[in-house]
Amino acid sequence: MNSTIETIMNRRSIRFFENREIPRSDLETIIEAGNCAPTGSGRDWRFTVVSSKKLIKELSETAVPAYEGFMTQAPEHFREIRRQIDAVTDDPIYYNAPAVIFVISGAMTASSDCPMVCQNMMLSASSMGIGSCWVYFGQIASEQEKFKEVLNLQEGESVFGPIILGYPSDNQPPAAPLKTAQVEWN
Amino acid sequence: MNSTIETIMNRRSIRFFENREIPRSDLETIIEAGNCAPTGSGRDWRFTVVSSKKLIKELSETAVPAYEGFMTQAPEHFREIRRQIDAVTDDPIYYNAPAVIFVISGAMTASSDCPMVCQNMMLSASSMGIGSCWVYFGQIASEQEKFKEVLNLQEGESVFGPIILGYPSDNQPPAAPLKTAQVEWN
Repeated sequence: MNSTIETIMNRRSIRFFENREIPRSDLETIIEAGNCAPTGSGRDWRFTVVSSKKLIKELSETAVPAYEGFMTQAPEHFREIRRQIDAVTDDPIYYNAPAVIFVISGAMTASSDCPMVCQNMMLSASSMGIGSCWVYFGQIASEQEKFKEVLNLQEGESVFGPIILGYPSDNQPPAAPLKTAQVEWN
Repeated sequence: MNSTIETIMNRRSIRFFENREIPRSDLETIIEAGNCAPTGSGRDWRFTVVSSKKLIKELSETAVPAYEGFMTQAPEHFREIRRQIDAVTDDPIYYNAPAVIFVISGAMTASSDCPMVCQNMMLSASSMGIGSCWVYFGQIASEQEKFKEVLNLQEGESVFGPIILGYPSDNQPPAAPLKTAQVEWN
């Protein structure tokens, strides 16, 4: 197994981080890797990096009411998972990650392209010892003024990710066992 | 630059292939890599591999009318790109690739998850010297009976990719220059 495939197979979602910043040059490499994703629309996407602790906290606080509203509608098994997470973090949106990267696009093929941008970022991060996770709730408040302002969101644009990034702390929960792929051969 | 990042940065879309089959064990590795993608829905996806030349030809022929219909509506610059491609292949859908992999899911987070599955497959392929491309037209006829039958498509399921795979031939067109990433730092 070559080391690219090892990176792909060993990557897992990381939500608990050391209190340590990621060097700017590493974030640049991660974004450059994201930017190399395949595209059907000429790489018509953009990146917003948030690493200001103050700003991440503000965005998180903006998202919490929408998150709590979502939770009242969520199925019980999902609420139970989130209760376990909420018990061990004071930031249920960005998990006190030292950096959050939003991928933004209004392109015709954005919905296919941008998750591949995100996966390139997560794999390159993983290959450098940096943990990451696509946090769905990280864009739950994208209709709020604060979000629109920080991301400079325009009409017709969508947000993908965001991807939280940081050095994995020692207290990771056990990884879920991998389900065998369901394959039909023709 | 580590070799995962090298793979990510050097991958490009490949549509022209040698007439050579991909060993089954390599296809299995590629699918296993796809299956390691992050997921918000418990890896609720499945893979259909088509490597029968006869079946690929049949699927391609099923897709051509929809492809030609689409083309009559497409902007002129796009039609010009496609005319150049059509001039050098007799299979404008799957490019005579020795293998085509469809990723299929009806999960709530399929639209985010499955492009990451596809990107894992394309990167692992690239790391093994196997070229690939997400071919949008490869699912253009997914409403046709022939497609539904081959993919065993159920109500509510969507098709991602498909990803064509094969050994790159010597006659690749020049790669498009990479656009610099547009980044805002906060």
